[in-house]
Amino acid sequence: MASLKSLYDPKADLESALHTNFDVDYVIDYRFATTPKPQAEAQFVKLIKALNDVGLATEVRNGDNCAVLVFVKVASDRHLNAEVYRSRVQDWLYGVRSAAPEKEMQKNLNDEPVTEAERLRLAYLLITKPKNEGGAGITPKSGEWKGVESIFALHDHAFNKRWIKELSSKYFLNAKDLIEIRDTFGEKIAFYFAFLQSYFMFLIFPAGFGACAWLLLGQFSPLYAIINALWGIVFIEYWKKQETDLAVQWGVRGVSKIQHKRPEFKHESVVTDPITGEELKVYSPIKRLARQLLQVPFAIAAASVLGSLIAGCFAIEIFISEVYDGPFKAYLTFLPTVILTTVMPTLSALLTGFARKLTDLENYETQDSHEAAMIQKIFVLNFITSYLPIFLTAFVYVPFATVIVPHLDVFQLAVRPFAENEKQMTAPKVGFQINPDRLKKQVIYFTVTAQIVNFALEVIVPYVKRSFFRKVKEVQADRAAKKGGGASSPTADDHPEESSFLVRVRNEAELGAYDVTSDFREMVVQFGYLSLFSVVWPLTGVSFFINNWIELRGDALKIALETQRPVPWRADSIGPWLESLGFLSWLGSLTSAALVYLFSGDGLGPDGTPWNIKAWGLLLAMFFSEHIYLGVKIAVRTALSKIDSPGLQKERGERFIVRKQFIEESMGVDAAEKAAAGGIAAGEKISKSTLEEEAKESTLKGHGTPEEKFWQRQPGQAETIAIGKSYIAKAAPNATKETKKEL
Amino acid sequence: MASLKSLYDPKADLESALHTNFDVDYVIDYRFATTPKPQAEAQFVKLIKALNDVGLATEVRNGDNCAVLVFVKVASDRHLNAEVYRSRVQDWLYGVRSAAPEKEMQKNLNDEPVTEAERLRLAYLLITKPKNEGGAGITPKSGEWKGVESIFALHDHAFNKRWIKELSSKYFLNAKDLIEIRDTFGEKIAFYFAFLQSYFMFLIFPAGFGACAWLLLGQFSPLYAIINALWGIVFIEYWKKQETDLAVQWGVRGVSKIQHKRPEFKHESVVTDPITGEELKVYSPIKRLARQLLQVPFAIAAASVLGSLIAGCFAIEIFISEVYDGPFKAYLTFLPTVILTTVMPTLSALLTGFARKLTDLENYETQDSHEAAMIQKIFVLNFITSYLPIFLTAFVYVPFATVIVPHLDVFQLAVRPFAENEKQMTAPKVGFQINPDRLKKQVIYFTVTAQIVNFALEVIVPYVKRSFFRKVKEVQADRAAKKGGGASSPTADDHPEESSFLVRVRNEAELGAYDVTSDFREMVVQFGYLSLFSVVWPLTGVSFFINNWIELRGDALKIALETQRPVPWRADSIGPWLESLGFLSWLGSLTSAALVYLFSGDGLGPDGTPWNIKAWGLLLAMFFSEHIYLGVKIAVRTALSKIDSPGLQKERGERFIVRKQFIEESMGVDAAEKAAAGGIAAGEKISKSTLEEEAKESTLKGHGTPEEKFWQRQPGQAETIAIGKSYIAKAAPNATKETKKEL
Repeated sequence: MASLKSLYDPKADLESALHTNFDVDYVIDYRFATTPKPQAEAQFVKLIKALNDVGLATEVRNGDNCAVLVFVKVASDRHLNAEVYRSRVQDWLYGVRSAAPEKEMQKNLNDEPVTEAERLRLAYLLITKPKNEGGAGITPKSGEWKGVESIFALHDHAFNKRWIKELSSKYFLNAKDLIEIRDTFGEKIAFYFAFLQSYFMFLIFPAGFGACAWLLLGQFSPLYAIINALWGIVFIEYWKKQETDLAVQWGVRGVSKIQHKRPEFKHESVVTDPITGEELKVYSPIKRLARQLLQVPFAIAAASVLGSLIAGCFAIEIFISEVYDGPFKAYLTFLPTVILTTVMPTLSALLTGFARKLTDLENYETQDSHEAAMIQKIFVLNFITSYLPIFLTAFVYVPFATVIVPHLDVFQLAVRPFAENEKQMTAPKVGFQINPDRLKKQVIYFTVTAQIVNFALEVIVPYVKRSFFRKVKEVQADRAAKKGGGASSPTADDHPEESSFLVRVRNEAELGAYDVTSDFREMVVQFGYLSLFSVVWPLTGVSFFINNWIELRGDALKIALETQRPVPWRADSIGPWLESLGFLSWLGSLTSAALVYLFSGDGLGPDGTPWNIKAWGLLLAMFFSEHIYLGVKIAVRTALSKIDSPGLQKERGERFIVRKQFIEESMGVDAAEKAAAGGIAAGEKISKSTLEEEAKESTLKGHGTPEEKFWQRQPGQAETIAIGKSYIAKAAPNATKETKKEL
Repeated sequence: MASLKSLYDPKADLESALHTNFDVDYVIDYRFATTPKPQAEAQFVKLIKALNDVGLATEVRNGDNCAVLVFVKVASDRHLNAEVYRSRVQDWLYGVRSAAPEKEMQKNLNDEPVTEAERLRLAYLLITKPKNEGGAGITPKSGEWKGVESIFALHDHAFNKRWIKELSSKYFLNAKDLIEIRDTFGEKIAFYFAFLQSYFMFLIFPAGFGACAWLLLGQFSPLYAIINALWGIVFIEYWKKQETDLAVQWGVRGVSKIQHKRPEFKHESVVTDPITGEELKVYSPIKRLARQLLQVPFAIAAASVLGSLIAGCFAIEIFISEVYDGPFKAYLTFLPTVILTTVMPTLSALLTGFARKLTDLENYETQDSHEAAMIQKIFVLNFITSYLPIFLTAFVYVPFATVIVPHLDVFQLAVRPFAENEKQMTAPKVGFQINPDRLKKQVIYFTVTAQIVNFALEVIVPYVKRSFFRKVKEVQADRAAKKGGGASSPTADDHPEESSFLVRVRNEAELGAYDVTSDFREMVVQFGYLSLFSVVWPLTGVSFFINNWIELRGDALKIALETQRPVPWRADSIGPWLESLGFLSWLGSLTSAALVYLFSGDGLGPDGTPWNIKAWGLLLAMFFSEHIYLGVKIAVRTALSKIDSPGLQKERGERFIVRKQFIEESMGVDAAEKAAAGGIAAGEKISKSTLEEEAKESTLKGHGTPEEKFWQRQPGQAETIAIGKSYIAKAAPNATKETKKEL
């Protein structure tokens, strides 16, 4: 890795600029390259006014490429504190915090200082919330704010530097590291790192056991499959618990209930909530359901399009590598890869765009549900592109190759220009051999090569690209300066004290936004390989273990250097990804059993096909595997639910204290303690005198009713005892007599 | 049905006794037939003292058969009210009530009057809770209180009479009826009736559709199987929602968290809760887990014992009915039935006793967990005895009969004394015919005959028995009176005003306790037949629909007349039965698919066996059926979760109000409204003057830091706007020029 200093910025004199952000909370990148001057000015004035109206202070500086950068901070500490306190009280109102906030605002803020993430989140909300909810209503790139290219916070480079240094010098993140991430980048990103960390820790087991299995058990070991599935169950159930625990510890449990409305949401009618008196914008859920049903044809269409592309390329590849026997075979083998790498990204982008349109059409009210719906669709697309090739090899090519290969002659078209004669393009009628290593090779490709390529595309390529473009820009600027056109250079007006800072801000303005979803997706897809196919190549775990050590650091580097500082959103879980993990783990119980059944034992027969496949055997293996899986899952869940977690303990305690407090206020300390003790040991004791008093009372009232007479026959304990004794004396001797008789 | 009046009691002059309970809360039946007189007296004194110590008033009267009846009521209204209020506050403390109780005790009691169930529950707890928790610590039939035969509340006969009259005159219970049951018998029993009612309502569909299917589709219709499974899913998911809703409406949601400690619980150590300061008795969960694992061998043993008994009888039956051809065949056919009806109850009782011992050994801390563990074991036993015979017929007898029947010769032993020659006892080598109606007949037996028999055993037989024994008692008493041994007659000391009341109480003392578990079990087992096997005979639903109309009334009659008044315990759900229902419904998706595959189409082949069974086809059918089932379940659950329920709305509203109240107290009404509105629209507005003030302040402080300087360059909105405009003016013309150039 290059030295960190040079990574941060090529110019060493910018170093000092890393130390201060000039108290800037957000930078608004306002662009007017395509807007006529009067409109641009009017819109700018409107922007500044909107910001000032909600208590934000502004400064403006020149930006690159026909842009101005508006620097924003919350104008007064008092305003910020009020916002923070209000948000905390709102959390309590909605049940996110179990501990009630201190009634004294200042005391609350002293007890629990405002974190950077909290401040930035509230400032962002102030800028973007609709006007009727008390924000400035600035929505980047949409509607009247089309000119606002982005709203981004400035990186805390001192922190970033220290953070990345620290990460690269330790193996595991501890709770403190996670809290640091949470305080800087918000809970949503902290959850990603917490998940990645837990997953990485858990990978130790499949890595170690996988290595042993690879050495001792070989491929397609039933034992490996069982232990791998068990590991998946334990990991997912552990993470579920861990997730809740972290949410409680971070004070965000149930925060998904406080949802951010989507400004794009279109309502049909406005309803007043009978209880809270809030006005609720409503969209018919039935209409939405009807639109959601479009997902089904979408999934089918996506599956067929992507599936036929993959299956087609796969067939061509087999045809060329195993049937074709003419010239250029070595080069032609790459033909399907070329087709895939050119067509697939376009197709994927097309389908993703379609998925986005579909999600928009579903018109969700909140950001969270919108995101979840989008993730669902993306997961379907990813599932097909990531796993279908291996599925085809394992469950179509190997069992049915001898049936299918002779029909691959249709692909002669692809190689006709190169073949010298027909025979080269015709499958041999006998003696066709299945390539038994294909499956393993493919799994290795997806679990090693693809991971490395992915990492390069994700972290290294953007860095190189960015460095290159920056260089180009510098050269252009130099040239422009030499030409003397200095007036239009954005740096011309810079105050010398700020110039290095502004250079940095202009650079950050050029960066893309960080999308935690794509990182999650990568990890979930990876987990899928482990769960679905690692029985083919038990070293999968080792590869992922190494990969994820780098991945975590790479992601940190990406956030710190390659993207704008993300808005520190809150979250109380990893969201819909958990379900995807569960689904993959469950599917793994089916595929692993099938793979073991198909390929284990002596393995392949004389012609390369597994020799003793019986459909009922395969189905029975899958059936048992799945049901044992489900049974074990319930057992593991039950066992884990019995273990108390520090977070839940904390929450229980806090809730208890709040309620006790309430009762103390309403009943006095004494009563509260009694109620809390759950008993009436110290409760009101009835004394002889009370009883006698009541008796007297009833005598005074007269004993008209039969009920009163009934209870007056033995007015006190003594009478009851005396009369009872007499009854026993009368009855008991008889009893003894009888027993004697019996004897 | 006999006239209600005569059902209540044969003597018409007792009628007046039905109108009052003399304010008695509980009757303690203290028996001393086998205790020497001095001990009996000492124990009695101790009993009365213990009761008086916790504020209970007592009266004593003679009981039948060497017993005295101690009548108990809470001595003063003030004491009762304090208990009620304390319990309500405790509910709030533990999160059961979302609305905080009124701070003024009397106001709370006026707003929400004490129900009979509430009073009786608290009185029962006063009598039975351990001394250190403020109760009298009287535990019937155990430890030092062995003499206490039972503690029971007196029936409210006026209510019972009206209730049963009302039930028999209407088809469906409405919410008011359920609340009445809840107020009288407690939430636990109300949940049973609510469940039974929902189940009955839902049965309309399988009854109607089943009748149509029977007419139009015949047996083993795939369409019927699919719709039946779908119905099961909808019913269970609906009930889950309904259960929560009722719990919220009845104010008992989460009441299972407030658990009653089992007096039999043995703790290993005492730990002080760090937060609440309560002393907690602890038993190692690992030790418990180890003991819980004993359930596995228990289940296996039970399954093998019951299974082999059932399988054995089954085999004998087949042997006799289909192989044996000698004399007495008609009578010998009943041999297995005789074996089953004699051995099975004994075996069941033995296994149930064993299950109880096992559950005791598991040493649960609370009544609820103890009960749940017991229910689990009972469910396993019931599952085997109820469904195994049909499983054997469907999945062993029909497919494998031709293989198995020739081996049934081992049962020749059973018929050897009757057979005239060997040939009569030997299976024909060829031409053996499977009885194709056996499966249907068996299902009809279990779903019609067995239900009727069960009802008779449950309601009618006990009534007849009780009437008979009461008659005998009366005759004996008359004879004793004639002999002149009147001194020892329990009625001798009765005050004339009370005598008819006491006769009634003595009768109630002889009754058994009501066990809602066995009623639940009956319904769950019934649901199982519908879910697992109704595809064999689609009229199952009709039979159950009729049966359950009677069942609900029968159960009411049982509670009112055949058993002591149950202690009105609370509950927030039907408990572990829900899981049993889910399991049966899921299993139904497997069995129905298997039955349809095995028997549908043209059905049986020439020799009576289904002719085209293929193992892979069967497995594939089950595989698809199960996965479609699971998918649909998720879809139904998701769809239902989108529907709001009145109970949840109520709860949300209550929680909202409580929190708002809290904030009002802590922040003043104004702030609360702001926080509740979720916005800062009305929040602190930053005015020009504030900004200027702060600016001045910072000027006074000196502007040493670069941050202050940065923000002072454009001290107000006007400056920002002016400077921004100048930037735009400078940059924009270039932009327009460029666009022109491009044009």
